Amino acid sequence: MQTDKPREACGIFGVFAREDMDVARVMYYGLYALQHRGQESAGIATSAGGEITCKKGMGLVGEVFDHNSFEKLGGRMAIGHVRYSTTGDSVPENAQPLVTRYAAGKMALAHNGNLTNAGSLARELIDKGAVFQTSTDSEIIAFIIAKEYAAGSTIEEAITLAMKRLQGAYSLLIMLEDKLIALRDPWGFRPLCIGDLDGSTVVASESCALDTVGAKFVRDVKPGEVVIIDNGGMTARQVRTDCQSSLCVFEYIYFARPDSVIDGISVYEARLEAGRLLARQAKAEADAVIGVPDSGIDAAIGYAQESGIPYAIGFVKNAYVGRTFIRPNQDQREAGVRIKLNPLKETVRGKRIVMVDDSIVRGTTSARIIRLLRQAGAKEVHMRVSSPSFLHPCYYGTDVGTHKELTAYRNSLEALCKKIGADSLDFLDVSGLSDMLGGRKVFCNACFTGNYPVRSEKETQQ
Amino acid sequence: MQTDKPREACGIFGVFAREDMDVARVMYYGLYALQHRGQESAGIATSAGGEITCKKGMGLVGEVFDHNSFEKLGGRMAIGHVRYSTTGDSVPENAQPLVTRYAAGKMALAHNGNLTNAGSLARELIDKGAVFQTSTDSEIIAFIIAKEYAAGSTIEEAITLAMKRLQGAYSLLIMLEDKLIALRDPWGFRPLCIGDLDGSTVVASESCALDTVGAKFVRDVKPGEVVIIDNGGMTARQVRTDCQSSLCVFEYIYFARPDSVIDGISVYEARLEAGRLLARQAKAEADAVIGVPDSGIDAAIGYAQESGIPYAIGFVKNAYVGRTFIRPNQDQREAGVRIKLNPLKETVRGKRIVMVDDSIVRGTTSARIIRLLRQAGAKEVHMRVSSPSFLHPCYYGTDVGTHKELTAYRNSLEALCKKIGADSLDFLDVSGLSDMLGGRKVFCNACFTGNYPVRSEKETQQ
Amino acid sequence: MQTDKPREACGIFGVFAREDMDVARVMYYGLYALQHRGQESAGIATSAGGEITCKKGMGLVGEVFDHNSFEKLGGRMAIGHVRYSTTGDSVPENAQPLVTRYAAGKMALAHNGNLTNAGSLARELIDKGAVFQTSTDSEIIAFIIAKEYAAGSTIEEAITLAMKRLQGAYSLLIMLEDKLIALRDPWGFRPLCIGDLDGSTVVASESCALDTVGAKFVRDVKPGEVVIIDNGGMTARQVRTDCQSSLCVFEYIYFARPDSVIDGISVYEARLEAGRLLARQAKAEADAVIGVPDSGIDAAIGYAQESGIPYAIGFVKNAYVGRTFIRPNQDQREAGVRIKLNPLKETVRGKRIVMVDDSIVRGTTSARIIRLLRQAGAKEVHMRVSSPSFLHPCYYGTDVGTHKELTAYRNSLEALCKKIGADSLDFLDVSGLSDMLGGRKVFCNACFTGNYPVRSEKETQQ
Amino acid sequence: MQTDKPREACGIFGVFAREDMDVARVMYYGLYALQHRGQESAGIATSAGGEITCKKGMGLVGEVFDHNSFEKLGGRMAIGHVRYSTTGDSVPENAQPLVTRYAAGKMALAHNGNLTNAGSLARELIDKGAVFQTSTDSEIIAFIIAKEYAAGSTIEEAITLAMKRLQGAYSLLIMLEDKLIALRDPWGFRPLCIGDLDGSTVVASESCALDTVGAKFVRDVKPGEVVIIDNGGMTARQVRTDCQSSLCVFEYIYFARPDSVIDGISVYEARLEAGRLLARQAKAEADAVIGVPDSGIDAAIGYAQESGIPYAIGFVKNAYVGRTFIRPNQDQREAGVRIKLNPLKETVRGKRIVMVDDSIVRGTTSARIIRLLRQAGAKEVHMRVSSPSFLHPCYYGTDVGTHKELTAYRNSLEALCKKIGADSLDFLDVSGLSDMLGGRKVFCNACFTGNYPVRSEKETQQ
Repeated sequence: MQTDKPREACGIFGVFAREDMDVARVMYYGLYALQHRGQESAGIATSAGGEITCKKGMGLVGEVFDHNSFEKLGGRMAIGHVRYSTTGDSVPENAQPLVTRYAAGKMALAHNGNLTNAGSLARELIDKGAVFQTSTDSEIIAFIIAKEYAAGSTIEEAITLAMKRLQGAYSLLIMLEDKLIALRDPWGFRPLCIGDLDGSTVVASESCALDTVGAKFVRDVKPGEVVIIDNGGMTARQVRTDCQSSLCVFEYIYFARPDSVIDGISVYEARLEAGRLLARQAKAEADAVIGVPDSGIDAAIGYAQESGIPYAIGFVKNAYVGRTFIRPNQDQREAGVRIKLNPLKETVRGKRIVMVDDSIVRGTTSARIIRLLRQAGAKEVHMRVSSPSFLHPCYYGTDVGTHKELTAYRNSLEALCKKIGADSLDFLDVSGLSDMLGGRKVFCNACFTGNYPVRSEKETQQ
Repeated sequence: MQTDKPREACGIFGVFAREDMDVARVMYYGLYALQHRGQESAGIATSAGGEITCKKGMGLVGEVFDHNSFEKLGGRMAIGHVRYSTTGDSVPENAQPLVTRYAAGKMALAHNGNLTNAGSLARELIDKGAVFQTSTDSEIIAFIIAKEYAAGSTIEEAITLAMKRLQGAYSLLIMLEDKLIALRDPWGFRPLCIGDLDGSTVVASESCALDTVGAKFVRDVKPGEVVIIDNGGMTARQVRTDCQSSLCVFEYIYFARPDSVIDGISVYEARLEAGRLLARQAKAEADAVIGVPDSGIDAAIGYAQESGIPYAIGFVKNAYVGRTFIRPNQDQREAGVRIKLNPLKETVRGKRIVMVDDSIVRGTTSARIIRLLRQAGAKEVHMRVSSPSFLHPCYYGTDVGTHKELTAYRNSLEALCKKIGADSLDFLDVSGLSDMLGGRKVFCNACFTGNYPVRSEKETQQ
Repeated sequence: MQTDKPREACGIFGVFAREDMDVARVMYYGLYALQHRGQESAGIATSAGGEITCKKGMGLVGEVFDHNSFEKLGGRMAIGHVRYSTTGDSVPENAQPLVTRYAAGKMALAHNGNLTNAGSLARELIDKGAVFQTSTDSEIIAFIIAKEYAAGSTIEEAITLAMKRLQGAYSLLIMLEDKLIALRDPWGFRPLCIGDLDGSTVVASESCALDTVGAKFVRDVKPGEVVIIDNGGMTARQVRTDCQSSLCVFEYIYFARPDSVIDGISVYEARLEAGRLLARQAKAEADAVIGVPDSGIDAAIGYAQESGIPYAIGFVKNAYVGRTFIRPNQDQREAGVRIKLNPLKETVRGKRIVMVDDSIVRGTTSARIIRLLRQAGAKEVHMRVSSPSFLHPCYYGTDVGTHKELTAYRNSLEALCKKIGADSLDFLDVSGLSDMLGGRKVFCNACFTGNYPVRSEKETQQ
Repeated sequence: MQTDKPREACGIFGVFAREDMDVARVMYYGLYALQHRGQESAGIATSAGGEITCKKGMGLVGEVFDHNSFEKLGGRMAIGHVRYSTTGDSVPENAQPLVTRYAAGKMALAHNGNLTNAGSLARELIDKGAVFQTSTDSEIIAFIIAKEYAAGSTIEEAITLAMKRLQGAYSLLIMLEDKLIALRDPWGFRPLCIGDLDGSTVVASESCALDTVGAKFVRDVKPGEVVIIDNGGMTARQVRTDCQSSLCVFEYIYFARPDSVIDGISVYEARLEAGRLLARQAKAEADAVIGVPDSGIDAAIGYAQESGIPYAIGFVKNAYVGRTFIRPNQDQREAGVRIKLNPLKETVRGKRIVMVDDSIVRGTTSARIIRLLRQAGAKEVHMRVSSPSFLHPCYYGTDVGTHKELTAYRNSLEALCKKIGADSLDFLDVSGLSDMLGGRKVFCNACFTGNYPVRSEKETQQ
């Protein structure tokens, strides 16, 4: 259920138009397609003749922009951002893109990810007399680039030098006077891909945004690569090759939209496969397989395919429960769950049910849903989770896994099963993740294993 | 796709509290559960000590009401309404409930349906000196009841007399000083059911709203029945029995939520069954069955079950496309469809696809979706529609079926198939509707057959 | 100070265009000029080809209407209203104009005033089966006209018959399919005048609104007169002549704008004259005369002229204190007064001050202002009020005079003087009112004298 | 008329509470009293325990803040700002206070004035690698202070060093972790004064804001002085004494509220005196003296006093014309003026009128007003302007005087008189300004004389 899983990770989108194009509209639809990655704020910066116009605000893309915004946001180049605040406070100042003036003119930045050495980088700059206005990584990145440039580097060199200093996750779009630069941290934690829209270039966090604006997928930006897009075309430079590929596996499990393909692997296929693996690994005698909307559906279908148990619709979700929804108070909590998710009695009454979800966060929601299923007449409820259980916090731009409640159950599947009231419970094995990704060996699974590709300053502080 | 199917039919909800209860909140959640029936306006009227407080406005339930509204809407009794304007203009004045002062005090009305003799009833009242402020049936109904009451009837008698004069569809909630009255027209066109919430009584257009507020389903209000709910309990009177039962079959096909049970028949089961019937009646050689979100999904699963062709997710729907969304202009129409619905390439690439939808309105949207499927690599697309084709307008409170485009194709399935670009096309037979409803013989299928249970003044005018 | 004097009395404005004209804009500026008469809600109804479009809402003219409103409000005829709720609740439903459908088509009404027999008229209609949706006089008036029309009268006859039944104050604009009707109750309680705008006809509560839209003053509508404006020109009919002229004297003292001329008398001149009369009647030894902004300024200048004591600016008023202003809480009340009105120390320090205000309502505000003057160094403060003291409630569409606090002081000027902390206090004599109006003998001064031209049902109830 | 004189100059307000106090409310009322100095944006930053909370936005104080803001803005110390954009674009990012993190923690700034060497200061910082996010002087000032602090100075020394580098106008409030610092540039261009509120310290651009919150005036901050307010009390340091006192004379003529006293001189007295001087210097044979609201009123009264010609109200101003007002289009311009300002026919008909205004900007508005007076029947109109004519741009934080139209008339009073359609026209002599200020010799009158106390980079660019 949405309220327990606000686990977005920001989304970025950019356009460099070579044809005549309504750039602001393309940005609008592109960000709409990435809205699931961040719902706190949205922003678009467009560039025309060296001048950058930026419009950003708290809320959804559809709330921040209207027809008037389009008229103001002219230009041939633009970058945009949807934000979920994994770092920095939830205040208007922290909305992106960040637009700054530096020695060579204007520069706009849109950042997806989380630096692991932000604290020491900021401290170093401040000690030399800098002032900071936001609590975002973007401002630190802008400062470092500006400093290197002021010290005599070209802007490309300055970015290269900055990439040597920045640690952690950063998929970045940088808009300068005459070019758009897209880059991905050397570990490749967050996705970033390039598309072609009738000769113009589009960059997006996920390929579903390329589809949405009608662009053709060209390729992913590689970890450690800088791609420079200007009137001359697109040039790429592999700046760093010294880090282990560490794409976040949770992008496949939850963050990304199923219609995206990331680093060559289909998100939908990965989810189906997770369901199939789960069916093999954690069998259940049952009459129907259902998924918890929306993120459990794909794996449920995979589970059904593999197990031969029929797939059925288990819940009807209320499509209108959004940000303005007033949540039930204490007394009405039981009924409250049903407002968002109502079990389909026809599916569950008198049946043994396999219920698939993508993850368990605190367990309270799972417990309530299972109670609803029993009230609706389910004879048995076997919960199957299409990912391993979270045991470690994420330092790379998501907010999964820091829940002490769950950690408490790390040695006892039975205790958790009892807590949520299921007849049986099982998670996908960590060893299954590689199979889920079609055999891919290298990726970040730190939230499940604690094997962090990059140490974080926060980690050491704890 | 939403934009081509704004075919809501209004929803009503009422509470008579016998326990201490936050009536406004129960109303809020009840209306939320009926939001799919009307998104133009929402309103709640609560009654405390003979005084009625009403708050209504244009927009969704979540937009019209906030925490402040709850404080103002006290009381032990309430009725509410969500509206889609099948009759009357889209103006604030027409939002319901309608609150009026009549000879015995205050009266509030919430109406779902459409009178077929509204014009002559209004004309008659106006000719006697009445003035009308809205263009809604509710005002006419209030007037007729008030007139009968003023002429010496009790309010119950006045309502009974009114029911003899009103023709067409009307599921009604009437709130008086000390009682709540629920009634359904003698044909029973629109649904209405009663629930029990810890001793208090709840009335709703659909049973999903009873589930949502945690109430137990008690029974449907019968066609031609008046149910009076007051401190003494609930008393019912069968006012008219002279009309043929004519529940709208399209409630099962499209309007109602799948988790509702109407007049003893599960909406979800009816949709599954429609899919199964379609599979038998209109076979296809294919590799996968997909449904068009959201209303085609259930029938697609039924089709898959019966045909043995695997069910798969065919599209990813953008959950954020709502009322503030700025639609693409002419140039971007192709891309525009993808913003709302993106085909899953993994499902369709190289495959023969059966695509199930609940209906075809103009055909343009179907054509675009099929084009998207082909671009995504589908080898064949066989469209199956889980209802017969609309050939006649509805006069009973919905806006289906008046599309000349479709009528043009009435004699030629092939021409329509060609227009939408499918490899084959088939609709559910009219004869299948009875099977879909588990053998039920009597219901309204006028939009498919032209067999109107009640003549409409509008019909004769045409 | 504004907060103690919300004594507006509604304003109405109408246009019948004979030239091509942006009718909605003319309405907008006309209502802006009447905004001081009512700030609770505003509305405009325009008519084009028998269809009436109405836009109304809570708030100021500038809040209710924007550029979009203008586009929607086309037509060649329009009426508008600004409301202060002297009768009826402060709810959106009560905003005017009221648009109704009656036997001959559409009718819109805008009403300024207050019926004194509304209760019995409504009761009579309700007892015959009518329903009422608002708590406004306008709905009653519409009903009575519609009933007479339905009974066989022409619309002009129906209006004439209605005027025989309506008692109390009503300046009315009625818009029908092809004509605009302006009328004034037989007593002429509230003003109404006609102007010419390049051949088109304009009707307004006050002549300042004619100036504002650039129209020339033609004449006042006479008490008991009905003026019909249509394509053929303007025709007038004196319907009733049986009542004593009773124009509200408080229009001159407070309600109307000083740049208006009502029934041949300049509001500004009347106020100057009130000051002069006061100077003669209630002399004071002083160094400066100041007025309480804004309504006491004109009389202060008159007082200065007559007394020879120099006029000076006594206070600076904060122009930004409006509806969104958050008032000080208890602790900050002293400072709170200064936020709206700050004494000019240079004017008052060490001086004997005559302070002129148009009226005293509760006396608390006067007390606070006088305390501020003393803190600013005033040696003496002599308060002079340019009207007699309120002793009786108004039943004709204003809310002056029902303050028990003041009544308590009716026999004791000294006690009130002490309460407000003045060195001396005097009011204009009732006998001075006629002089103030240049010798006019007949007008309504019931709030001062209790001589009511028409008995009110409410009065008898008390 | 307002629209031609958007000549605000920003206002700042600060509180250091030593008693228990609702700091946010005091700030709110303080800024309300300074609203006339800037209407583009408003902001308040409060400090509690080293953490700074800031709320700012576009619009008036009453629009930016509501009850909720008060709850969030806790603390014992606060600074606030109302802005008119004399420098920097009209965008949300430029709203003040500016909150930054520097080497010793958080720092908030509110600035009134305009640096004349902002360009070179910014360029120098940027060349060393700084990035700028706004186009305001405040960011430059924050940077310079932070740099000096990082280089080893105490914060007080850093501020002192900064004051040696900053040129032009800056009245500043700086809020640090435990102290509030108020300072004024060495020329003293903009006002700044200190008040005592029951033991707590208040700082404001104008003394009217001290009155408003109930504080007692203590003293003005001296040009070149830094005042440090903390728990220990108030300490002052005269940092620079090398500049000529250059208080802006136009503060007296127009910017400041008449109830303010700046550097010992009453604004109201100065305006009265300007009127008196004008009466002596530029006599007129006339029947009445009127002032153009609001800024011409005081001088008109002075003119009347000195000349013996009676003062009268010449215009009624529409108090509701504000930011939401939709201006008349081309066709309605004539009428358009009357919407804001309607002449009082009773005052002007058949009379010879002296009309006093504080200044003439482009002359178009004066021309329109004079035309209105003539239409209202004025026999003669003699315009008297209570300041010399603008001939030179201002570089110190206002936007007066850069109008080429006027400059064209510099040698020809007659031509301008003809343009505006007056019978005679006269301005206050430059030599009269010193008399107006009671003999004060040193002040800035550059907009009239071109004698700039500090050269501006912009000046040289031109």
